[in-house]
Amino acid sequence: MITTELQTSPRKKRVVIVGAGFGGLSVAKALGNSSFDVTVIDRHNYHLFQPLLYQVATAGLSPADIASPIRSILSGYKNTHVVLADVTGIRVDEKTVIAEDRHIPYDILIVATGAQHAYFGHDDWAAHAPGLKRVDDATYLRRRILVAFERAEAEPDIDKQRGLLNFVVVGGGPTGVEMAGAIAELARKALAADFRKIDPRDARVILVQGLPKILPSFPPALSDRAREDLERLGVEVRLNQTVTQCDVNGVALGKERIAAATVVWAAGVMASPAGSWLGVETDGVGRVKVNPDLSVPGQPEIFVIGDTSHCAGVSGAPLPGVAPVAKQQGEYLARLLKARSLGKDYAPFRYRDFGMMATIGRKSAVAQLWGVHFDGPLAWLLWSAAHVYYLIGFRNRLAVMMNWMWNYFTFERGTRLITGLSGSRVQDMGRPPPM
Amino acid sequence: MITTELQTSPRKKRVVIVGAGFGGLSVAKALGNSSFDVTVIDRHNYHLFQPLLYQVATAGLSPADIASPIRSILSGYKNTHVVLADVTGIRVDEKTVIAEDRHIPYDILIVATGAQHAYFGHDDWAAHAPGLKRVDDATYLRRRILVAFERAEAEPDIDKQRGLLNFVVVGGGPTGVEMAGAIAELARKALAADFRKIDPRDARVILVQGLPKILPSFPPALSDRAREDLERLGVEVRLNQTVTQCDVNGVALGKERIAAATVVWAAGVMASPAGSWLGVETDGVGRVKVNPDLSVPGQPEIFVIGDTSHCAGVSGAPLPGVAPVAKQQGEYLARLLKARSLGKDYAPFRYRDFGMMATIGRKSAVAQLWGVHFDGPLAWLLWSAAHVYYLIGFRNRLAVMMNWMWNYFTFERGTRLITGLSGSRVQDMGRPPPM
Repeated sequence: MITTELQTSPRKKRVVIVGAGFGGLSVAKALGNSSFDVTVIDRHNYHLFQPLLYQVATAGLSPADIASPIRSILSGYKNTHVVLADVTGIRVDEKTVIAEDRHIPYDILIVATGAQHAYFGHDDWAAHAPGLKRVDDATYLRRRILVAFERAEAEPDIDKQRGLLNFVVVGGGPTGVEMAGAIAELARKALAADFRKIDPRDARVILVQGLPKILPSFPPALSDRAREDLERLGVEVRLNQTVTQCDVNGVALGKERIAAATVVWAAGVMASPAGSWLGVETDGVGRVKVNPDLSVPGQPEIFVIGDTSHCAGVSGAPLPGVAPVAKQQGEYLARLLKARSLGKDYAPFRYRDFGMMATIGRKSAVAQLWGVHFDGPLAWLLWSAAHVYYLIGFRNRLAVMMNWMWNYFTFERGTRLITGLSGSRVQDMGRPPPM
Repeated sequence: MITTELQTSPRKKRVVIVGAGFGGLSVAKALGNSSFDVTVIDRHNYHLFQPLLYQVATAGLSPADIASPIRSILSGYKNTHVVLADVTGIRVDEKTVIAEDRHIPYDILIVATGAQHAYFGHDDWAAHAPGLKRVDDATYLRRRILVAFERAEAEPDIDKQRGLLNFVVVGGGPTGVEMAGAIAELARKALAADFRKIDPRDARVILVQGLPKILPSFPPALSDRAREDLERLGVEVRLNQTVTQCDVNGVALGKERIAAATVVWAAGVMASPAGSWLGVETDGVGRVKVNPDLSVPGQPEIFVIGDTSHCAGVSGAPLPGVAPVAKQQGEYLARLLKARSLGKDYAPFRYRDFGMMATIGRKSAVAQLWGVHFDGPLAWLLWSAAHVYYLIGFRNRLAVMMNWMWNYFTFERGTRLITGLSGSRVQDMGRPPPM
């Protein structure tokens, strides 16, 4: 009797998705109200729009402007469960995910756990050069940047004051470029009139890039334009230089020492430890090498997508760790799973590359879209439109647009709050959140 | 020679204002670009609109929506300096304020250091029943409330689940009433559809008030109306009951125990320690008893205003610790100092009481204005208009209005972010910020 019942009404297949970033969330949404039983596990209760995190760090936006509760996003899908927990491992033999004190069983597992900033052998630098991946990183960096100006205002020693007004950004990719531009604008515009003993416009912003150009994945003409725009904002761009030492007093670039109270690390990321959870081969930055259908070699029921995945593009090089790759992989996986559940086969994943963009500051950006180059104000408008469009949730789009319009017309920064250290000395920098 | 020079061009009088709440900021603004040299010291870099803090704690607004940088507010006043530091004492003999490692000299001192929540002999309750005075309190409470629902969703034990869905608010003044109403709305509307194992509408919200009515300073008819409105929202109002025990499992009201993971303390405040800094007489809640001109007895160059001041009203009873009192006292002091600097005398402070208001939830509030009673949607509109109007800064007004409209029409809560505990177990409640 029981056996018959199971046969006539088969149990729904359990799809477990670890991580609610761009990749995980796009699978979950595409499988919404399908015949699968879907569980999304994340250690945060919100989806974070990481490309705008640098604006939280530089007091342009509030965290809630770029984050949406995962439960709200998925609340219309009755086949979908959300679990708030930190995943620490996967039991491949038992087909369960270890999430704090729970073991969550799966039939199909999708790992979309992203990447975190990495110091590649210099973990002690983390305390002095925080990175920018999570909301807590951004509010911590905001605190450090704002406190540096406050301490400079109170500092009688001119040399110490200079160090407090030096800001070093390490890494010339999009995050580094955007951070450097945003700090320069904050100092030269929003803060300019607010101090009495220092002039915030004296702040030096130094962008350190190990390669011969910034934005190395962009066409050379756009990289050059981005560098010129940064320099017009007052950013010192140091090409072909690398940080050889980093401590509480600043950084060393070979023999040159730069005193700096604020160092931002945007020089590299490392994939989440999914490879070691699964016991499979990874590349040099910890990404799992996947099959053309995004499954893990030898484990056809496990898929890895997004920044944790090493997926070869048409050129053979791995696809970059950007939101469009993760989203397209997520949507692809949902189609693949639906096709296979009907007994059909499905073609390998293929990334459709629409282009790339990065913003430098007010009215300045560079973009390559459908092979066409854009720069200056037009690129900036395209960048703004694209980012507002992709922000999840109508409210967030409205809030971000309003904040941007406000910042644009007034040069003000609305979220200049130093928070998070009640009870200690208010001019302390605090400690970065644990990795 | 030197003496003559000093006589013809006398040094500007140094006014030092400790605290940039409603009182301190209103003095500073009214003395802006005057003949005084003004220094404002605060341990935060922002002015906080405390009356709306409960909306940050219940995920309706972001901290930046109700806080403005003090430097921005005062940046147009070139005679005004802002110091970010924690004041720990006053050297009356030396006429200096001790602010961390600096001693800041004054000719005239204005102490406007406010109040903090107090447990009156039960300081060990602070860890279990956090209060609501600072931004960090509000984001911590938001974390606790949201984590309670997350833990309930994951909890297999039905008794433990019940405790996680019980919310006790201690204190029936405006803060307690507003918190209880906002938690009930959050559970019954914004979260209702987002969970699968629990129904957030099952949450119990219990408001405990030691007196025979809530909002005791309001006319009885409005107190009754507020209680009815709260009960309509599903809040259990317990009158004439007091919390006799409070621990990690919940509270005891005499012999009755209520299991509750979330207890909010809105039962009492204590003035800042200004009285002990000055070595002067204080009342039972630590407020400094001031002269009719708000000066400290025996120290005519020191004034105490706002929640730290015990200032008798026309009835003889001390004026309440509300924003309008602090603002009027600040404006009064600026006029008094200007008059005295011209050798004129000035009349004692007199509070102009326009009324009082408190909101219960969507479309519900009570207000007494110019002696007229309002309730229901009209009172709610008045309340909303008044709070938006008094929010400092055009941007904040816009942002708050937009958030409220969004919340009103969608029942959504946009800022439901659990933040602040990176690296630890995500379902931990965390610890309250130090007092």
